[in-house]
Amino acid sequence: MKTSVVKKITFCAAHRLHNPEWDEATNQKVFGKCNHPNYHGHNYELHVKVTGEIDPSTGFVMDLNVLSDIIKKEIHQKFDHKNLNLDLEEFKNLNPTAENIAVVIYNLLRPKISEHLELQIILYETPRNYVIYPEK
Amino acid sequence: MKTSVVKKITFCAAHRLHNPEWDEATNQKVFGKCNHPNYHGHNYELHVKVTGEIDPSTGFVMDLNVLSDIIKKEIHQKFDHKNLNLDLEEFKNLNPTAENIAVVIYNLLRPKISEHLELQIILYETPRNYVIYPEK
Amino acid sequence: MKTSVVKKITFCAAHRLHNPEWDEATNQKVFGKCNHPNYHGHNYELHVKVTGEIDPSTGFVMDLNVLSDIIKKEIHQKFDHKNLNLDLEEFKNLNPTAENIAVVIYNLLRPKISEHLELQIILYETPRNYVIYPEK
Amino acid sequence: MKTSVVKKITFCAAHRLHNPEWDEATNQKVFGKCNHPNYHGHNYELHVKVTGEIDPSTGFVMDLNVLSDIIKKEIHQKFDHKNLNLDLEEFKNLNPTAENIAVVIYNLLRPKISEHLELQIILYETPRNYVIYPEK
Amino acid sequence: MKTSVVKKITFCAAHRLHNPEWDEATNQKVFGKCNHPNYHGHNYELHVKVTGEIDPSTGFVMDLNVLSDIIKKEIHQKFDHKNLNLDLEEFKNLNPTAENIAVVIYNLLRPKISEHLELQIILYETPRNYVIYPEK
Amino acid sequence: MKTSVVKKITFCAAHRLHNPEWDEATNQKVFGKCNHPNYHGHNYELHVKVTGEIDPSTGFVMDLNVLSDIIKKEIHQKFDHKNLNLDLEEFKNLNPTAENIAVVIYNLLRPKISEHLELQIILYETPRNYVIYPEK
Repeated sequence: MKTSVVKKITFCAAHRLHNPEWDEATNQKVFGKCNHPNYHGHNYELHVKVTGEIDPSTGFVMDLNVLSDIIKKEIHQKFDHKNLNLDLEEFKNLNPTAENIAVVIYNLLRPKISEHLELQIILYETPRNYVIYPEK
Repeated sequence: MKTSVVKKITFCAAHRLHNPEWDEATNQKVFGKCNHPNYHGHNYELHVKVTGEIDPSTGFVMDLNVLSDIIKKEIHQKFDHKNLNLDLEEFKNLNPTAENIAVVIYNLLRPKISEHLELQIILYETPRNYVIYPEK
Repeated sequence: MKTSVVKKITFCAAHRLHNPEWDEATNQKVFGKCNHPNYHGHNYELHVKVTGEIDPSTGFVMDLNVLSDIIKKEIHQKFDHKNLNLDLEEFKNLNPTAENIAVVIYNLLRPKISEHLELQIILYETPRNYVIYPEK
Repeated sequence: MKTSVVKKITFCAAHRLHNPEWDEATNQKVFGKCNHPNYHGHNYELHVKVTGEIDPSTGFVMDLNVLSDIIKKEIHQKFDHKNLNLDLEEFKNLNPTAENIAVVIYNLLRPKISEHLELQIILYETPRNYVIYPEK
Repeated sequence: MKTSVVKKITFCAAHRLHNPEWDEATNQKVFGKCNHPNYHGHNYELHVKVTGEIDPSTGFVMDLNVLSDIIKKEIHQKFDHKNLNLDLEEFKNLNPTAENIAVVIYNLLRPKISEHLELQIILYETPRNYVIYPEK
Repeated sequence: MKTSVVKKITFCAAHRLHNPEWDEATNQKVFGKCNHPNYHGHNYELHVKVTGEIDPSTGFVMDLNVLSDIIKKEIHQKFDHKNLNLDLEEFKNLNPTAENIAVVIYNLLRPKISEHLELQIILYETPRNYVIYPEK
């Protein structure tokens, strides 16, 4: 039977939701106040879940300190205290919705974590809105 | 790969647990203080999870503002500041346990959400008791 | 310098807000959905704060297990899984607002706690509404 | 003895910390990553505390629905999904630190709340940083 | 469709991570400060999830008071205010990582819960680290 | 009017409550399971509150990054992943109750923080027990 381990971290970032192929009225209609041109922001709470077998010599699925270092280097340094639309190459042509941020984080972490471990991202945009990727 | 989005809301309601086909002693034995005839109540915390593909034009699985409006209209108006046993048709012949409340909420929301999206209800009755329906 | 110790417990109860000296329209206008005649309910989260000097032989202001037993006996047994309006003598002629519940709890606990210790009640009615009595 | 009632709300905003009278190096040294020119953001959690006597006819210090409406109109509409530096007149010449945001919110709410009630602002910038104004 | 019910409890325990087959330097390198010889400790938050069909006569998957009594007897009495390494037979030859604690709890509870119900353990070691066993 | 800023951190430690001047039966009677000889442990959540005037050039009462560095150096390095009874000189002759831990933390931090700022310690031993020192 498999076991999962989860590490939670927080990052603070600004963003706005916008589709450049639409006119202003459509953007406003679809994204509402999230389309505000001067940006707004969130304390994003990120859970990184890694699933696999427990290594009998350590009792770990994966050392959470190692996982924590990977998340700090690959995600926290890149996302924390940044403007997702302006500062991150990944969102130059991708709308920074919570769903897309979760996919981007997954794609950044996936190559850094052993292939025989599964990876799942849970991302809270606010205490009342969150996303899960990939969902089983 | 699928993605889930989750919206959380709170509603406050009174209820009691009771099976009218049983005598008082059996009700008391099975349901204990939850059987108290004058009712008691909870701040129910409801998570509504919707699972599907990310729409590339919006970056959304489903617009959480639309989901929020559906939950307000179909669930919050019906359940909040109500007595579940006395005020809701759905519990006239159904014991309002957390499990049954979750099933009723699922059945109320299912027809309002696109068929190609999956739906799951997570319902906290207290910070220490919660239910999930349907479980995979 | 003084030190405070705080014990938190939860109780679940039904209530309604109502002033019997007012007509229905006034009650509805002032108390809104909290006036619903069939009651609604909450998970009340109660913090009991006791302030005094640290006893050098124990390192305690007051033994929290003793405080916990007093709260269970005087408050939890009386309030948990009850209808505050119908079941508690204290609210026969007193509207069970969060403010008044805090005052009632204070008055029930005050005689059970040593006179040279100060007492303060913090009561969450919902995660977004709370009261403090007495405020300094 | 006085009683306090507290209402909590959340708003999401972008900001940056910056003193225009300092050169870039000093701003960077003092404010670190909070000085990032493209802004970052937070889910601010605001507690508004009002202190006074309980009105015996209502059992309220102040009707929390009335307080909630005042907060929505005076604070939430102005701060939520905004860039504090660019969108709010109040921060044109004032650095939007959590301390200064709390003072601004106090000054906006003070004239809207009865003079015989005391007012205090508690503002969480992140789950690990918060401010209180005025402190007693 | 299946439904899950979850009960949360907390226990407080001391532990250290250590592999007796390794020398001190390797233990220190792999387990870091968790290897501290005098032990450290945590408030473990345990979620016990039970999955099955809702019994139409009770509206319960499983009576949470019964589940709660089983958890108190089999887990809380054994783990709370204990040193996992020194006091529990189960960890005499097993490193008390969060993963292994979850497996031990699963194995203790599994025989006490009806065979036609599924069981899953979610265990928070800190608010920022948690494990799930078995993961689907 | 004064303003407070608060920084929260967590540390994990083992301890036991014990008065060496008492016999075993008295220790057991007063401290119950907290007297367990092999220790138990907690995730302590520490709030450090600093109160003073807002500096108009920074908008800060005190730079929370500076405060955070002081707490890491003076408290976190000393307390985290330690056994309070065995590893800390301060508890060689002092019972490590939450009250006494708060006083020790206050005394360690007080000389490191500007004299014209007030200091207060709030320490959660569990999510349901906490202490405040000094209380006003």
